Amino acid sequence: MTVLILTSEQDVTADMVVVHLNASAVPVVRLDPADLIGGAALSGEYVHGSFRGHLWSAGRLVGLDGLRSVWVRRPGTPASRVAEPSEWLTEESSQALYGMLRSSGARWMNHPDAARRARYKPWQLRLAQRSGLPVPATLITTFPQAARDFAARFPDLVVKPVSGAHPQEPPRAVPTSRVAPDADFAAVAFGPTLLQRRIAKRADIRLTVVGERMLAARKATAPDADPDEVDVRFAPGDVPWRPSDVPPRIADGVRAYLREAELAYGAFDFAEDADGTWWFLECNQSGQFGFVEVDTGQPIARTIAEWLARPVPENAPKRVNGTSSRVC
Amino acid sequence: MTVLILTSEQDVTADMVVVHLNASAVPVVRLDPADLIGGAALSGEYVHGSFRGHLWSAGRLVGLDGLRSVWVRRPGTPASRVAEPSEWLTEESSQALYGMLRSSGARWMNHPDAARRARYKPWQLRLAQRSGLPVPATLITTFPQAARDFAARFPDLVVKPVSGAHPQEPPRAVPTSRVAPDADFAAVAFGPTLLQRRIAKRADIRLTVVGERMLAARKATAPDADPDEVDVRFAPGDVPWRPSDVPPRIADGVRAYLREAELAYGAFDFAEDADGTWWFLECNQSGQFGFVEVDTGQPIARTIAEWLARPVPENAPKRVNGTSSRVC
Repeated sequence: MTVLILTSEQDVTADMVVVHLNASAVPVVRLDPADLIGGAALSGEYVHGSFRGHLWSAGRLVGLDGLRSVWVRRPGTPASRVAEPSEWLTEESSQALYGMLRSSGARWMNHPDAARRARYKPWQLRLAQRSGLPVPATLITTFPQAARDFAARFPDLVVKPVSGAHPQEPPRAVPTSRVAPDADFAAVAFGPTLLQRRIAKRADIRLTVVGERMLAARKATAPDADPDEVDVRFAPGDVPWRPSDVPPRIADGVRAYLREAELAYGAFDFAEDADGTWWFLECNQSGQFGFVEVDTGQPIARTIAEWLARPVPENAPKRVNGTSSRVC
Repeated sequence: MTVLILTSEQDVTADMVVVHLNASAVPVVRLDPADLIGGAALSGEYVHGSFRGHLWSAGRLVGLDGLRSVWVRRPGTPASRVAEPSEWLTEESSQALYGMLRSSGARWMNHPDAARRARYKPWQLRLAQRSGLPVPATLITTFPQAARDFAARFPDLVVKPVSGAHPQEPPRAVPTSRVAPDADFAAVAFGPTLLQRRIAKRADIRLTVVGERMLAARKATAPDADPDEVDVRFAPGDVPWRPSDVPPRIADGVRAYLREAELAYGAFDFAEDADGTWWFLECNQSGQFGFVEVDTGQPIARTIAEWLARPVPENAPKRVNGTSSRVC
């Protein structure tokens, strides 16, 4: 049974996982959807009530019923590397590839539907609340008056994008920032704005969850840190990430979150306050882990490889929608 | 409790449903996401472990916990009607609106995740097979040789887009067409191609399903019909649609299909052959129904209104992901 990795050729993080799979002699096929149609190809036949499908990539042929898992890492846009790319060909190729994979019965990290849903920040915040995780008071609004009322109740605020998009992806160059005390919020009427009570943090927490395994890393806030520097992604990098234990209540909440979100992988960001409380900031279903592994030595890549390599249970109900992690 | 309809102002099909809701005195709020931010607005607050959200559209304010159902009809692109539209604002507005609605606990017709998945034609074909519906022999491939082999086994074929996109949406101007006997299939290498055994049909069937209710319509093939004219959407319109019974085996299959697909609404297209067998062609989760209602007099709009107006069950488990039609 083969592991299928959907990612680009330049993805060195995927390389880290492939090393472990190779060491265990688990067959791997790596496919970049951008290489359709040419470097990669596909075929599926629906005859007499059954389905037989095949993928071909980098000289290797694999049957869809021979897939044990699919890792959606950093797949390219389908058919974007052909001589004359078009929206039409991308749509057709995307439908053909993902439409077939969705029928394969393989385990997903993460299933495309779960991955898509998991990106909605307002949904994340509500799910975190329901899962029992501490969530800083948050407002998402297009009403300036609602923003003013909120700022009166919670004077120390940060503002961040609703979409939670990474600032490194232009044109979304909006890091999390502290709100100036004299902000008048009139601009709220021109776009949804996310305001959140600032956590006076003594550390950033990155909790990487792979299946049932939790690997937490903690980065202490430098004593001389500028309180206006709230986005850890842009903070000076001299303090390293260190392994950390996970408080039992947080572990319970995270398990509940991932179960409901139907995610096999999630990278949680928390802010730790002076009392040691971990405040939920977000869960990125495709969050990077290389920098944590390098700093802490935690075996994240190996844990992912082990999850992907797990044998398919004999009596697993083959769900057409493929979210076999769902227990129902 | 209010019914929320996400659609454009010009949507006359939605008007048909609103008439019935008004007659039953069910509160309705109609919102076009394109009217964000200006004609429509939103606000949501996450404080002390709970969530309170509101939508405002056309002068009406509704609380998200006061929604009984959401009908996703023909919503516009979020925030596309502002003075200076941008991808960024559309993304932020989409995240804010749908992210909050996903936490509302309302019943969906159809839930965005189910709707998205339901568009994958290869997934549809496999699900139809597993649901016990007759599916014509089909091949989706980028291998010319696979196409040639398939044509040798099934000489009478049609070709259609994999994405099942409607030909009226440029640039996807590809109606279903009959394959010429001398086709050489070399072009298959340039894009995924869907080949399907042509059903020599004596009628087209449109089966509209609303919740548990099935409304079937049948359009007999004209005796002098050109066998090359396989796409009913482009056939001459002189033969009207007539109400039809649903064979019990098809009804069972359709129920299984919609249960697994988690759809509250689906428009199925079948081809009826000389033996009376209904062959599954596709299920469109947002298929039009106005033309069927006009021809047959079947009360589709009223049935949709009744589904949307159903009271929320007292003890319904409020799922964060909102697919409350799922029984698990």
